[in-house]
Amino acid sequence: MDSTESSLRRELTEKEIAIAAQASVVRELKAEGAAKELIDATREALEALEQDKSLIDRRLQVVLLSKEGSENGSGFVDKDAFRQALLNTLERRLFYIPSFKIYGGVAGFYDYGPPGCAVKSNVISFWRQHFVLEENMLEVDCPCVTPEVVLKASGHVDKFTYLMVKDEKTGACYRADYLLKDFCKDKLEKDLSISAEKSAELKHILAVLDDLSCSELGAKIRDYGVTAPDTKNPLSAPYPFNLMFQTSIGPSGSSPAYLRPETAQGIFVNFKDLYNYNGTKLPFSAAQIGQVFRNEVSPRQGLLRVREFTLAEIEHFVDPDDQSHPKFSEVANLEFLMLPREVQVSGQSARRICLGEAVSKGIVNNETLGYFIGRVYLFLTRLGINKERLRFRQHLENDMAHYAADCWDADIECTYGWLECVGIANRSAYDLRVHTEKSGVSLVAHGKLAAPREVEKLVIAPVKKELGLAFRGKQKMVSEALEAMDENEAMEMKTVLDCEGEVQFHVCSLGKDVTIRKNMVTISKEIKKEKHRVFTPSVIEPSFGIRRIIYCLLEHSFYTRRSKSADEQLNVFRFPPIVAPIKCSLFPLVQGPLYENVAKHIAKSLAAVGISYRIDITGTSIGKRYARTDELGIPFAITVDSTSSVTIRERDSKVQIRVDVEEAASVVKELTNGQSTWANVLYKYNTPVPLPKDD
Amino acid sequence: MDSTESSLRRELTEKEIAIAAQASVVRELKAEGAAKELIDATREALEALEQDKSLIDRRLQVVLLSKEGSENGSGFVDKDAFRQALLNTLERRLFYIPSFKIYGGVAGFYDYGPPGCAVKSNVISFWRQHFVLEENMLEVDCPCVTPEVVLKASGHVDKFTYLMVKDEKTGACYRADYLLKDFCKDKLEKDLSISAEKSAELKHILAVLDDLSCSELGAKIRDYGVTAPDTKNPLSAPYPFNLMFQTSIGPSGSSPAYLRPETAQGIFVNFKDLYNYNGTKLPFSAAQIGQVFRNEVSPRQGLLRVREFTLAEIEHFVDPDDQSHPKFSEVANLEFLMLPREVQVSGQSARRICLGEAVSKGIVNNETLGYFIGRVYLFLTRLGINKERLRFRQHLENDMAHYAADCWDADIECTYGWLECVGIANRSAYDLRVHTEKSGVSLVAHGKLAAPREVEKLVIAPVKKELGLAFRGKQKMVSEALEAMDENEAMEMKTVLDCEGEVQFHVCSLGKDVTIRKNMVTISKEIKKEKHRVFTPSVIEPSFGIRRIIYCLLEHSFYTRRSKSADEQLNVFRFPPIVAPIKCSLFPLVQGPLYENVAKHIAKSLAAVGISYRIDITGTSIGKRYARTDELGIPFAITVDSTSSVTIRERDSKVQIRVDVEEAASVVKELTNGQSTWANVLYKYNTPVPLPKDD
Repeated sequence: MDSTESSLRRELTEKEIAIAAQASVVRELKAEGAAKELIDATREALEALEQDKSLIDRRLQVVLLSKEGSENGSGFVDKDAFRQALLNTLERRLFYIPSFKIYGGVAGFYDYGPPGCAVKSNVISFWRQHFVLEENMLEVDCPCVTPEVVLKASGHVDKFTYLMVKDEKTGACYRADYLLKDFCKDKLEKDLSISAEKSAELKHILAVLDDLSCSELGAKIRDYGVTAPDTKNPLSAPYPFNLMFQTSIGPSGSSPAYLRPETAQGIFVNFKDLYNYNGTKLPFSAAQIGQVFRNEVSPRQGLLRVREFTLAEIEHFVDPDDQSHPKFSEVANLEFLMLPREVQVSGQSARRICLGEAVSKGIVNNETLGYFIGRVYLFLTRLGINKERLRFRQHLENDMAHYAADCWDADIECTYGWLECVGIANRSAYDLRVHTEKSGVSLVAHGKLAAPREVEKLVIAPVKKELGLAFRGKQKMVSEALEAMDENEAMEMKTVLDCEGEVQFHVCSLGKDVTIRKNMVTISKEIKKEKHRVFTPSVIEPSFGIRRIIYCLLEHSFYTRRSKSADEQLNVFRFPPIVAPIKCSLFPLVQGPLYENVAKHIAKSLAAVGISYRIDITGTSIGKRYARTDELGIPFAITVDSTSSVTIRERDSKVQIRVDVEEAASVVKELTNGQSTWANVLYKYNTPVPLPKDD
Repeated sequence: MDSTESSLRRELTEKEIAIAAQASVVRELKAEGAAKELIDATREALEALEQDKSLIDRRLQVVLLSKEGSENGSGFVDKDAFRQALLNTLERRLFYIPSFKIYGGVAGFYDYGPPGCAVKSNVISFWRQHFVLEENMLEVDCPCVTPEVVLKASGHVDKFTYLMVKDEKTGACYRADYLLKDFCKDKLEKDLSISAEKSAELKHILAVLDDLSCSELGAKIRDYGVTAPDTKNPLSAPYPFNLMFQTSIGPSGSSPAYLRPETAQGIFVNFKDLYNYNGTKLPFSAAQIGQVFRNEVSPRQGLLRVREFTLAEIEHFVDPDDQSHPKFSEVANLEFLMLPREVQVSGQSARRICLGEAVSKGIVNNETLGYFIGRVYLFLTRLGINKERLRFRQHLENDMAHYAADCWDADIECTYGWLECVGIANRSAYDLRVHTEKSGVSLVAHGKLAAPREVEKLVIAPVKKELGLAFRGKQKMVSEALEAMDENEAMEMKTVLDCEGEVQFHVCSLGKDVTIRKNMVTISKEIKKEKHRVFTPSVIEPSFGIRRIIYCLLEHSFYTRRSKSADEQLNVFRFPPIVAPIKCSLFPLVQGPLYENVAKHIAKSLAAVGISYRIDITGTSIGKRYARTDELGIPFAITVDSTSSVTIRERDSKVQIRVDVEEAASVVKELTNGQSTWANVLYKYNTPVPLPKDD
């Protein structure tokens, strides 16, 4: 930590202690039944302290923001150096392992090693707490293997494709758009002889690249003579390659299936049951966390573009005529970086906007969408994402998926630029409609109309007696055929009957025409009162790429600081306790059974209350042991240096407190499960805030 | 609940309250520093109470055991009726949903609906707490898509197969062994004309069915004229069908891959990194929880035989020469049903054995295996598996997988019979060896020898000077070739050199023979002291079928009781709080904002401390609302019938206590996270145990 960061952190902690003290005064006064004026004054002072704190917090975020990519106390020359140091640490400490490494690995597959796996499981637990539990969502768990019919209906079989070209001699495959893009960029950068006209043409191609059809792309590649990058061989015409992994169910090979590319479809096909489970009430949310699969062509960007990853998806079903949200007021005052469509088009960058205002001004379409944007913001920042490196960007019209009516992405900035980590899409009624159509099962909701409304309805009333006389034994078929007429047919028949008294009518089930007379049927339009309506719900879908969020979290949490002897840069992850892979280290100060038994006793208490720990009984110096666990982002370290009391050290400030052996586990528990904060603990143990000292 | 069960439950609760009271007396005496004799006497009384309690608990388990499948208070005529009632409830309350139901479903795929998904997530959390956290295991998370080379090495590509036959006309596929089994059974049961000799032959086939080779199976099917069951058409010769779902990585189609059939291989290929992460120390455990896939031929048994399911697997790496376990004493006193190999062979049934004795008598091979058996027992019974319907069965010699050296299954009894739910296998060094061989990366551990040992070692020492003179410029190749000789070659050369003074020697890298003279190399065998050894660790693998465990849990938890009006059988799941899908219901007694606001206030407190709840503000009678949530296994219900205090009702006893509004959430939290028990709460709130009353 450079000196600005550490002095800001110190100020922050002091302010937090003051807040803890003031809050306890307010509580005491209330308990004593003190005068209202006195309580109010004390409470105002508390609020002032809280405002001070949020200002310091803001300044700290800005300092953190400016650190990476600039030559300062963080010790990194540039983004690449920062990223390389991070990746080295992640690999060395086994956050990630290239999958099947002993067999040379396979591009696009990474394992989570022990600390990475723990971070992932913590992020998912917090997601469940923050969304499923606090919003009372219906969580489901569907298979990865999905029969073709489902993904045919959803459009994935036909549209989830890249256009590929093949090296005509070696058979190597490439993405056609990438080759054309590389060709244009290369030409523009390196070929100084091209005309202004040609240059404009190439730039235009780059701008519309995503919109080119298969044949347009093929024509450009042919016209420009683009060849295979590795061999310079000619290329085939572009052909679509589906990104889904294909497989087949059962031994016969006749049931094609895919590995799901998203978890959402599992929820849509269950809509009817979930709607009933919810007491046929809207709105409600269903959620699913699970593996999804995308057979990327040639994954680059290491940890980011992978072929198998975890999505956490919410499908919020809502009446399209009422997208208000009862809890919107809870997030309306949040203020953060937003990048609405118009701002992007005008070429400006993200600006700080108050969410309530964004909804009232129509920048965000409705309260429900706004509520989820706010909840996503709270989720990400509570995980430890830097507020200044998080923005909500609205998709441009041409940038949206085929099913989306409006879409906001939560983009997080990292050394690769701004990464889409959460998509919050309004999928409208698209999915429920296509599955209704394909399956024949009606995926709709029923609602009461605010006021009954009058509607004109067609009424076809066959006169059974007359039909019976005319078509003995076959009157039922005729009668059903009459009732099955649509409005146009029926009104046409009525006109003819009114004018001519009879009409020829084809009855399919009899395979012939019959003569219908005016007395055999009455056709009319009547005004009826309707109290209920049937509609397809709209769907708001917040979809979280867990792996990308974790990667950004790792970047935002990573920093280095000098060792005590100043001859080394030590790595630290400043994970919040809920994210930290392990919550607590345990160090007997010296080797031998005396302190080790105390450590084991505390270990048992920690495990019993569900706090993960790592015990280190090596004789290594305590400073080195601290450095080892700082590099795993372990927030607290208990050092056993007596049999009656121990010290607890906080990772970032390096400040220590002393507590009884029997209290140690419960203090760490409170600190890590959110019941208490480090500032509260410092206040409680009456510890002054010393300048951070080197271990 | 019938009267025996309910009176036993009442006795149990009374005993638990007495224990809570006695324990508090012990604590007080200790705090007061009372005389040791007094404290000891009080503690003995406490222990006596605990013994009483465990006897009552035993009796209760036996009563529960005898309930299903017998005509008594539970209201079920037989197993089938019980299972049907259970399955109806599971379907109606959406514990499971047939996957892709609106498209007619696909055999072998089930979704977990909201309560099922919550139970699953609770079981997995508890597994993580009980194993990963308490045993400090290294959890990893590897992809489902696995390249062929890994599964070729593990043996799955060649051996994870069924033998299939095809209907020669329709192409329909069947498992060959099933058809032969059905044929033999049918013949034995229905054909009374067969000779004693024939009957013995058929019985013999049934006994050795699993050991028949492909051609033997084909011969039997041909000889007996077995035909396709649906069409009576002739059958093809048997051919192997691999149970793994196949797919392919990348666009070229040249990288075959499979969906993993177990999670274990992901751990084995990472052994080297994990061993280093653990400080190159043995023993250690790695763990993985994840989806696995088996392309079953024609899944029957509904929820049990599925094509995609979750496994939780532990690979415990241990020195084969020292399989003792430091924590074995913690489980040594456990006593439960075991079915060792000899007992099975002698045709007897499972017997109650003390685990410590089983290990000391060699029934269980070693402490490590024993320790895991004990931990599995604790895991399952704490989840709510009935102790009397759980047994540990040792595999017979011919019954073990190709890699296993010893294997114990945790079998749980349900209406389908005894189901293997956890396998605890000693895979010895099999997997690490095959991956070492295939990948060329040495997956071994290093150990210190207790005492250095003397070993005879071959020493080949080329004499550089002489080689240089003889082979100018090529002496390095000759020298390397000499050093690369194995013991036989070298000793043979030594003999020739000793006798004849020179020898012809082929040097591969030179592509020719050279003449080696006695003065160019010395070959000897020397006695050296060795302090270290290199070995392949043994692997103990407890592997948990999460879906099967959950299904058995559902069976063991399900019961019915009569409604107040006695005109209805009401369904209840007696889930322990850690398993219950939702921890608490919230019922405002009457509709309207007064009680509803109190309920919302409590709801917020519950969500904040991570307790899931279900609020029901319908005007339905309170009895009906209790019945609805009993059917989801929700253990506690808070009924708001005033603005200052509320009642909390326990599901199985139906006993209620009254607590302050502000206390309600924290009482439920303590009850559900294991900090307190219902008996403790009854004791604390000084509530007598009334006879269970109808709601």
